[in-house]
Amino acid sequence: MNNADLTIYTLFICNKFRKKIANLQFNNIKTMPKISNKGKLMPESPIRKLVPYSEIAKKKGHKVYHLNIGQPDIKTPEVAMEAVKNIDLTILEYSHSAGNESYRKKLAAYYTNQGIPVNIEDIIVTTGGSEALMFAMGSTMDQGDEIIIPEPFYANYNGFSTASGVNVIPVISTIDTGFALPAIADFEKLISAKTKAILICNPGNPTGYLYSKEEIMQLAALVKKHDLFLISDEVYREFTYDGDIHYSVMNVPGLEEHAIMIDSVSKRYSMCGARIGCIVSKNKELMTTAMKFAQARLSPPTIEQIASEAALDTPQSYFDEVISEYRERRDTLVEELNKIDGVIVSKPKGAFYCIAQLPIDNADAFAQWLLESYDLNGETVMVAPAAGFYSTPGMGLNQVRIAYVLKKEDLISAVRILKAAIPVYNAMQVKA
Amino acid sequence: MNNADLTIYTLFICNKFRKKIANLQFNNIKTMPKISNKGKLMPESPIRKLVPYSEIAKKKGHKVYHLNIGQPDIKTPEVAMEAVKNIDLTILEYSHSAGNESYRKKLAAYYTNQGIPVNIEDIIVTTGGSEALMFAMGSTMDQGDEIIIPEPFYANYNGFSTASGVNVIPVISTIDTGFALPAIADFEKLISAKTKAILICNPGNPTGYLYSKEEIMQLAALVKKHDLFLISDEVYREFTYDGDIHYSVMNVPGLEEHAIMIDSVSKRYSMCGARIGCIVSKNKELMTTAMKFAQARLSPPTIEQIASEAALDTPQSYFDEVISEYRERRDTLVEELNKIDGVIVSKPKGAFYCIAQLPIDNADAFAQWLLESYDLNGETVMVAPAAGFYSTPGMGLNQVRIAYVLKKEDLISAVRILKAAIPVYNAMQVKA
Repeated sequence: MNNADLTIYTLFICNKFRKKIANLQFNNIKTMPKISNKGKLMPESPIRKLVPYSEIAKKKGHKVYHLNIGQPDIKTPEVAMEAVKNIDLTILEYSHSAGNESYRKKLAAYYTNQGIPVNIEDIIVTTGGSEALMFAMGSTMDQGDEIIIPEPFYANYNGFSTASGVNVIPVISTIDTGFALPAIADFEKLISAKTKAILICNPGNPTGYLYSKEEIMQLAALVKKHDLFLISDEVYREFTYDGDIHYSVMNVPGLEEHAIMIDSVSKRYSMCGARIGCIVSKNKELMTTAMKFAQARLSPPTIEQIASEAALDTPQSYFDEVISEYRERRDTLVEELNKIDGVIVSKPKGAFYCIAQLPIDNADAFAQWLLESYDLNGETVMVAPAAGFYSTPGMGLNQVRIAYVLKKEDLISAVRILKAAIPVYNAMQVKA
Repeated sequence: MNNADLTIYTLFICNKFRKKIANLQFNNIKTMPKISNKGKLMPESPIRKLVPYSEIAKKKGHKVYHLNIGQPDIKTPEVAMEAVKNIDLTILEYSHSAGNESYRKKLAAYYTNQGIPVNIEDIIVTTGGSEALMFAMGSTMDQGDEIIIPEPFYANYNGFSTASGVNVIPVISTIDTGFALPAIADFEKLISAKTKAILICNPGNPTGYLYSKEEIMQLAALVKKHDLFLISDEVYREFTYDGDIHYSVMNVPGLEEHAIMIDSVSKRYSMCGARIGCIVSKNKELMTTAMKFAQARLSPPTIEQIASEAALDTPQSYFDEVISEYRERRDTLVEELNKIDGVIVSKPKGAFYCIAQLPIDNADAFAQWLLESYDLNGETVMVAPAAGFYSTPGMGLNQVRIAYVLKKEDLISAVRILKAAIPVYNAMQVKA
């Protein structure tokens, strides 16, 4: 090879590589656009990380009692499912952005009948209580604003707040008062110029606490004093036991401009999959604003609205049976839990959850261990570690949320497993 | 009355008033919590302000041809409605947060069959394309970030951006190119450190423009160069005419980390009321992030997912008929519009909208006048003023969006009314 040949050869080789490199740069070297900070901050479901362990348990052939979920095993009212089967639409059209007028009319009548006098224009039908809360937050809060929430609280409030750019300011309620309303002074200490609303869940998920009329009146005076909104998630309204009466924020005289009620058919009619809820308020400016959010997403689902409208014809006997069933389950659960040494549990007054404090160091590790390494005669239990329901780090570490959406016999079996497991787990901890 | 009596009487009166004032302050003087700036900034639907005028026209007994709406008059496939009627659920449960696995499997097969090879984990089922876009924005953009969108664009992109705290940066496409992709240099001028994504609608609402493969490749190179996401709303994918082939952002080799597809069953199967859509991407970090938004809102509607899954079995003959029907309507509409002196209209290549430029000064005033003050033999027309589809003030003032979702005869009648109305309106303007 002479010099000229060598030069040509070198150029040829170089060119080949240059093309390869250019190709690599365009096609193979991954340039990555960035995820938002908001997206990074979005919390994971506190239960989700346990799901793989529950799958492991099931693969081993173990039966898992799910005390962790809020999906009731109660049948959906037949009137609702019949309405779906009898649907006679040739075009599945958009509904009104505020929801079908016929549904809103019946809803207004239903609330009025429940002692909450509202009109059709005070209601916007939403895709679940979730969307109602997103509309409430979007209409009342800007980036960096603050919402005060008594903790422990429904874990997804964190998600909605993060998605809305809002900061959650928790005020601690404690198991020794049964998660009663914290002192108003505790709220007042936290109120700043950025505070725009107080959010409560009544009756509470995960606490099962039902706020008294007096507690609601205290909150009402507080939000009026500081010009805040009082957002009340009342999706468990029908589920109160022991004759206690639910007192809605919509019942407080003079609170019309401040009160926002969040509601949903999910639990009331065991229609979680319908994703039909609503936002209710007498504040016209708020509702006009929420309506703009509603228009942007066009409308809530049409068929499920038809099911929800029909569900309003559910006979009272359905609720009587369901409530009596839940009351029995609650009593059984609390009675059984109290048989375990060192367990603290406050009797829930409503909804179908309770928080139990267990004689263990770390409910997260315990919940995982129950699924991964423990069984009693081939059966184990899945619980929701309560830390996920607190916003303050370090709170609720030895607590779990238990949903009593299982049959009585299953609740008894599940608690029996917990009772047997705790000493085994603790002995193992001491050894380690 | 002596002095002592007078003093007591005065005190008595004062006290009475003091109590009344205190009472007024607590109960009757309205203290108002404030709406968010975000809520104030949320845009109203550009058509909404015309609705009262359309109601006036109807009350007068006038027939109104609705050229303003995107609700097709096409029948929903029977397989979908049959699946609803045959539902056999006793409990209407939550579905998976990412949507039913069986539905996602069939969706993945459907896309693969369309030349978009995706897996079940690349898909999250959402409540309409609306929610898919909200998840995409939330996962990729923070408060104050910017998204570049060729305008005119689907008006609700403004709403989703405002709700997400994101600023829309428009890049103008023009009627004389048929709303083709603006020059890449025009995009590049607008890219800043805050730019996180480019959003396109393909085929376009309201333009009816179908981007060519070359245009998509240009955008792909641009987003790779600047590490941006390319979000493509492809809900009208099936509706292309004249043999043009839709080229998805999911088809671009090497764009896996940047491409996000937004989809929906609404238009494809004339199932707008189902509110079922999806977000599709190969970017794992993005999908993990979007999944956290999905978990917060629990799940998309269960029954409508069953309908959407069944709709995937719609025979090709349905689409052939629908597309042939839309093509005929489009041809009729464009032909009729071209008969009006001074009208400029570019023939849409896809979707079922077009933008028409009318020989008038102000389409907003004209649209209102058509409903409020005009009729041709007892009939009038409702159009959507195009200014609402632009983000740049002053753009599109003499343009309207026309949806060809009416029968051919109705389109002919509607355009005949427009033709007769324009000179009447203009003569009136000259007089005034």
